Amino acid sequence: MAEPIPIIGGTGALGAGLARRWTAAGRPVALGSRSAQRAEEAAARIREAVPGAEVEGLLNEDAARRAEIVFLTVPFRAQSENLNNLRDVLRPGQILVDCTVPLAAAVSGKATRSLGVWQGSAAQQAQEMVPEGVAVVAALHTVGAPTLADAEAELDEDVLICADRKADKGRVAELIELIGGLRAVNAGPLEMARIVEQLTPLLISINVRYKAHAGIKLTGLPEADHWS
Amino acid sequence: MAEPIPIIGGTGALGAGLARRWTAAGRPVALGSRSAQRAEEAAARIREAVPGAEVEGLLNEDAARRAEIVFLTVPFRAQSENLNNLRDVLRPGQILVDCTVPLAAAVSGKATRSLGVWQGSAAQQAQEMVPEGVAVVAALHTVGAPTLADAEAELDEDVLICADRKADKGRVAELIELIGGLRAVNAGPLEMARIVEQLTPLLISINVRYKAHAGIKLTGLPEADHWS
Repeated sequence: MAEPIPIIGGTGALGAGLARRWTAAGRPVALGSRSAQRAEEAAARIREAVPGAEVEGLLNEDAARRAEIVFLTVPFRAQSENLNNLRDVLRPGQILVDCTVPLAAAVSGKATRSLGVWQGSAAQQAQEMVPEGVAVVAALHTVGAPTLADAEAELDEDVLICADRKADKGRVAELIELIGGLRAVNAGPLEMARIVEQLTPLLISINVRYKAHAGIKLTGLPEADHWS
Repeated sequence: MAEPIPIIGGTGALGAGLARRWTAAGRPVALGSRSAQRAEEAAARIREAVPGAEVEGLLNEDAARRAEIVFLTVPFRAQSENLNNLRDVLRPGQILVDCTVPLAAAVSGKATRSLGVWQGSAAQQAQEMVPEGVAVVAALHTVGAPTLADAEAELDEDVLICADRKADKGRVAELIELIGGLRAVNAGPLEMARIVEQLTPLLISINVRYKAHAGIKLTGLPEADHWS
């Protein structure tokens, strides 16, 4: 049986959307929350929506122990607290996939604006906070939660992945491409998360204007696989 | 006869690429440079490459007087100087389309990194520098000069346009969509140029990695025309 995919903050919109897509693709998910009860409730909703879904609701700390690659899908406001809670949980060799976007909404500002993060990006802040030996990979900032949650919605977009080691990006790309319609693109070292995280307020602004759920796609890339 | 499209810095790669595409689409171009001789040489190269091209080589100041919508396609290093030179030339009611990207390359840094601009973006800096009554529209940051210059290359990408007035964006969109394969997208107010300008170092980074000339496209937008 395949390893479960741990999702920290799995009761939120992005985490729950990913959980639906991965379970629908046949992968088990370890859905984490600060409350075991809320995690189990969210897991139950996924089992109801996705026939045959293998999903467990757990405390975040327990979810994070279930596999090497852990997804963090909390709002920016909660990122630090979550990383503090995982400090004694994450082990060297694990990969933390940070999906956080520093929207100004975190401080009651607009979701079409962002906050400056001292380290350059939320992902670089995460890299500073995880235990030594844990690699941070930034990804999934531009995939809309409503689109993920809507089983009828066909995805057709790219996921830009930033991290310092290509091998780490490749492992995360494999999980992302389990979801049909998503193509993983190597967007460079972790510092490029400064730019990639900004795509979210841009897309939010465009979505409001066009009443759409826009995604991003790069044109002109060769077909070749750049992960191997 | 249609108005010419003035391009300030038209001897550079982006300006010359646009001039080729617009003249090929049947629009006359007023190609500007700091040197009238270099402008005329660049215009001659375009006439050679594009049969029937109507293109004049002029001093920047003269080019900027030829039409209401003026394109500024200089490197960030030269943006301030050019705007200073245009201070007594631009008239209220004109639109300056700023294509500048504050790449760190301007100070011998990497083209995959950018500089912080006090006003938030190169376009907002331009807005501060143009005479009162001149509106700045930010556009064309992500369209690669090599792709524009290669007559055989088929474009298939979006141009994200930022400005405070929709009508201004609409007028610029019309000119951009004269170039086949480019779709203009309303990316919000001028302040969104903070994000859109950052797409260039991101694409440069991806182009180096994939040996490609990538462009950006938004998926999930409705077909409807949002400019009228």
